[in-house]
Amino acid sequence: MAARTVNLAVIPGDGIGPEVVAEGLKVLTAAAPEHDIAFETTEYALGARRWHETGETLPDSVEEELRGHDAILLGAVGDPSVPSGVLERGLLLRLRFAFSHYANLRPVRLYPGVGTPLAGVRPEDMDILVVREGTEGPYAGMGGVLRKGTPDEIATQDSVNTRLGVERVVRYAFAKAAQRPRRKLTLVHKDNVLTYAGELWQRVVREVGAEFPEVSVDYSHVDAAAMFFVSQPQRFDVVVTDNLFGDIITDLGAAVAGGIGMAASGNINPENDFPSMFEPVHGSAPDIAGQGRADPTATVLSTVIMLDHLGLDAAARKVEQAVSEDLRVRAGLAADERSTAAIGDDIAKRVAGQG
Amino acid sequence: MAARTVNLAVIPGDGIGPEVVAEGLKVLTAAAPEHDIAFETTEYALGARRWHETGETLPDSVEEELRGHDAILLGAVGDPSVPSGVLERGLLLRLRFAFSHYANLRPVRLYPGVGTPLAGVRPEDMDILVVREGTEGPYAGMGGVLRKGTPDEIATQDSVNTRLGVERVVRYAFAKAAQRPRRKLTLVHKDNVLTYAGELWQRVVREVGAEFPEVSVDYSHVDAAAMFFVSQPQRFDVVVTDNLFGDIITDLGAAVAGGIGMAASGNINPENDFPSMFEPVHGSAPDIAGQGRADPTATVLSTVIMLDHLGLDAAARKVEQAVSEDLRVRAGLAADERSTAAIGDDIAKRVAGQG
Ligand SMILES: CC(C)[C@H](C(=O)O)[C@@H](O)C(=O)O
Ligand SMILES: CC(C)[C@H](C(=O)O)[C@@H](O)C(=O)O
Repeated sequence: MAARTVNLAVIPGDGIGPEVVAEGLKVLTAAAPEHDIAFETTEYALGARRWHETGETLPDSVEEELRGHDAILLGAVGDPSVPSGVLERGLLLRLRFAFSHYANLRPVRLYPGVGTPLAGVRPEDMDILVVREGTEGPYAGMGGVLRKGTPDEIATQDSVNTRLGVERVVRYAFAKAAQRPRRKLTLVHKDNVLTYAGELWQRVVREVGAEFPEVSVDYSHVDAAAMFFVSQPQRFDVVVTDNLFGDIITDLGAAVAGGIGMAASGNINPENDFPSMFEPVHGSAPDIAGQGRADPTATVLSTVIMLDHLGLDAAARKVEQAVSEDLRVRAGLAADERSTAAIGDDIAKRVAGQG
Repeated sequence: MAARTVNLAVIPGDGIGPEVVAEGLKVLTAAAPEHDIAFETTEYALGARRWHETGETLPDSVEEELRGHDAILLGAVGDPSVPSGVLERGLLLRLRFAFSHYANLRPVRLYPGVGTPLAGVRPEDMDILVVREGTEGPYAGMGGVLRKGTPDEIATQDSVNTRLGVERVVRYAFAKAAQRPRRKLTLVHKDNVLTYAGELWQRVVREVGAEFPEVSVDYSHVDAAAMFFVSQPQRFDVVVTDNLFGDIITDLGAAVAGGIGMAASGNINPENDFPSMFEPVHGSAPDIAGQGRADPTATVLSTVIMLDHLGLDAAARKVEQAVSEDLRVRAGLAADERSTAAIGDDIAKRVAGQG
């Protein structure tokens, strides 16, 4: 029997989701023996097909079952046949909120050998960890509509920021910054306009920062941050930001750090009161689904965040190293030279020491 | 006497503001004779110094005086010595709201010869006109704080979207798109999460779009749009978006289209019930103020938007042509080879036909 059994819930989802998840699991399986881990997986059929068949996005009973796992690995959900927002809110956001995934970890890192659209930016210029708040802000779903359909219609959308919610993610981000060589934390907000929320974020950063005197603190308006992600990514080490700003700047981060095929994420509940969930930042990409053309790298890198979160550091480093080597080799290959499965195979072989 | 007199209110502002505004006026003056225009300027001392001296950001009497002008040219306001938000809200946003500048025009255009951080992007790949809503959304200043300073504190920030406000900017954007060769309008929002506001924006685009059958309509979530600004800018022709999303993607647009020294804007009241206001997107850059190192190009390009808005098309084309030629020449010069005034001189000479 393995020293450690990980009960993993797997949600392959739609489009390229199942393809990339298969490779993530392949790599985990390859890592298991050397690190004496057993992965026990249970698959959950959620996403567009289930919604079409049953109208369900996430039955309560499934939420209950997911809750019993150590972690969740998700591919991607969504399909043009499903109205915008149904699966996002009914499944993805529901899980983030129900399982208190308040720290959404999104590394923006340029691996050596990976192309970036930015001329002259080197890997050492881009090693950012974005900690995006995941359970409130403009994602709270609050607001409403008055006089709908009339010339006097008003639609509001309310960002809700609580001391509880802001403080816990800020403290988490400081702790992450304290562990990194540069020890720098940048708050990204728009406090000159969003004064109520901005003042709370600023005050909490100041107060929690007092517990981390070794971490230097910076601030950037979100508009300037978007600019700096392109022009001076080396300004940033750890970034902490609200749910919506984090959504935008991490997609931008993906674009500058080698593309969306590379961007990993972890929806973390640091206290482990609930399972954390790991998913590539990319969507279900229905246009290339089923063709074996999807890049599974973002999913494999998401399993690295998962292994780290589960305390399986040695396995995490091993998989990350394998991805990093694969990316170097890839620089010499034509784009699309390897299928989704072939990339997974190559990474798995390196993990198993046969690369 | 000139055929047309333009009463121009000038707010040089702080930092590099006065330096770049001087060059904008120099170029306008050079354009005046050939096009039979007289610019009568009145300067208003607003910004950090006035606030320090009097505590005023925009006295009512000054707002009244500004109202009597044909247009306003603003350099930049703000200084680290003034608390974040005071001048932004007390002056800039106050003018946008008071003068109903609901269409904030921000071209994202790569002029030939201008460097972009994006490898492989050519000028023809980047010719986007962002029409940013300017009078509501998350900028409405609505929201509040409950239980401030306690562990139970809640800060809200409300985005207010009215049928009136959304419809007028969407119609303006469609009209702009109809005049451009590609005739394409992309709505940028986040309707899968911000459902109340997003549904209103989508519905208005659908309804107003029926009046413009020649314009093709597209939609992009703001996170994807941020990615596409970097990876596929040619996807976009005219973009219409809300106040905050527009703030973020136009700074990003500035970064990819040659830098913030190039980014122009017009805060337009299309009905001319109030003077429109023209300003470079960049800030007051106190770090380089007074050194003659600021690039006045964004200000000069803002005067092009102004001339267009005032119906002075021939003069607008002349100034734009002069900037465009100057940018080509600049490609052969070392960065910083010319001072702020020298760049203004060179553009002015071209405008006056002595380039
Ligand atoms: C699918 C969507 C709801 C989601 C978000 O906005 O958070 C996605 O864009 C992401 O970043 O994970
Ligand atoms: C200064 C600030 C209030 C302003 C804004 O957010 O609109 C600026 O960033 C801009 O884009 O003009």
